Amino acid sequence: MRNLKFTVAYDGTNYHGFQRQKNALAVQEVIERGIESLVKRKVSITAASRTDSGVHARGQVFNVILNTSIPTNNFPLALNTKLPDDIVIIDCSEVGMEFHSRYHTSYKTYKYQIYSSEFASPFLRNYAYHIYHNLDVNKMKEEAEYLIGEHDFSSFRSAGCNAKTPIRNIFDIDITKDDDLIVLEITGDGFLYNMVRIIVGTLVQLALPKTKLDNIKDILLSKNRKKAGKTAPAHGLFLDKIYY
Amino acid sequence: MRNLKFTVAYDGTNYHGFQRQKNALAVQEVIERGIESLVKRKVSITAASRTDSGVHARGQVFNVILNTSIPTNNFPLALNTKLPDDIVIIDCSEVGMEFHSRYHTSYKTYKYQIYSSEFASPFLRNYAYHIYHNLDVNKMKEEAEYLIGEHDFSSFRSAGCNAKTPIRNIFDIDITKDDDLIVLEITGDGFLYNMVRIIVGTLVQLALPKTKLDNIKDILLSKNRKKAGKTAPAHGLFLDKIYY
Repeated sequence: MRNLKFTVAYDGTNYHGFQRQKNALAVQEVIERGIESLVKRKVSITAASRTDSGVHARGQVFNVILNTSIPTNNFPLALNTKLPDDIVIIDCSEVGMEFHSRYHTSYKTYKYQIYSSEFASPFLRNYAYHIYHNLDVNKMKEEAEYLIGEHDFSSFRSAGCNAKTPIRNIFDIDITKDDDLIVLEITGDGFLYNMVRIIVGTLVQLALPKTKLDNIKDILLSKNRKKAGKTAPAHGLFLDKIYY
Repeated sequence: MRNLKFTVAYDGTNYHGFQRQKNALAVQEVIERGIESLVKRKVSITAASRTDSGVHARGQVFNVILNTSIPTNNFPLALNTKLPDDIVIIDCSEVGMEFHSRYHTSYKTYKYQIYSSEFASPFLRNYAYHIYHNLDVNKMKEEAEYLIGEHDFSSFRSAGCNAKTPIRNIFDIDITKDDDLIVLEITGDGFLYNMVRIIVGTLVQLALPKTKLDNIKDILLSKNRKKAGKTAPAHGLFLDKIYY
């Protein structure tokens, strides 16, 4: 038996998230079926991160224990022939049997795309949150600074979150603007349920010409979800990279 | 009656080209239906350029003669509420009654996206031509130089082309590479049927590690379609801008 670690990129538009569902198609099921058609037996993969319906990934990681002689450097191309073109395996390596793609994660990077323009883009309709207004990107950057470091992120987690502790450590938030596209890149040791999307929704509201929100420092200290902005839509979010 | 000139961006993936078809859905039909639901009567639009099935546009132009009092600066947002999110009106202005969006075109810019990478991108599957190999972009640039100016482009037109003359004037070809994405931007006074896609297909074949093609100067002088490379796929092509 070998423990194989894969990196996969996918367009989440047509899937009900990563995790296998009973009554809807998830990315996990499609990948498992693909591997099964190669190794001719039932398999179950373990992913680093669940992504919600419509969320994308450039670097989701999963591992699977297999009895197979397929060389790791041939595996991505072989498996890609069994997958639809919105799911692409981009790496495979053999790891120790003790490796677990979720438990052994040390930190993660997400990216979130915002398209700030008078008109929507037909090409970004599934890949960026469209805001009709001009956003004050400098204000977004200033406010985002307060989130860096170890904090209680209770204000930035959805009701459904069942994490044991709301304490997380954000290492970096980088916000760049290129024409009408704003990209927020956030790296941390872990994220509460919907945390990135609530952070983005809050920063967007703070960057509008008029806002009713407190500044982000006060929102953070309040530990109250109601003080933060709305949850930004799923389709702007990309699970970018997972570090071990 | 007013003659209105519109600029429209669309994702061509789900349409059988721009021009209205009898048995398949084209962009033109969707836009005409949208305008009809605003002005409550039958309309017929005239576009600058037919785009093939799967080809995209950032700046297609059409005009239509209407009896309407809708102000031009409200028209795009009003019409966009009647259109699916893969077709977006981005401009409207009133022009003289003699203006014709096709006959009065002075030049056009197309862009073509090539994704050169070991693995396909799930996000570019409908927007770039995927080449598994590394391409010699400097060679592409050198070869492309020979196409600039006024030439007989018989080697670069498809059999179905019914243009009166194969003479066209290319003003500029700009090729840029950013990570794995190569963008070719080509501006000229007009293009024969499939001309941009055959130029791209030829440049790609010339930029591969091994090629059986002659250099592009000889291909051009041969005036023989068989000497050029294959037609690059539709989904990498964008009608970028039309100048009047």
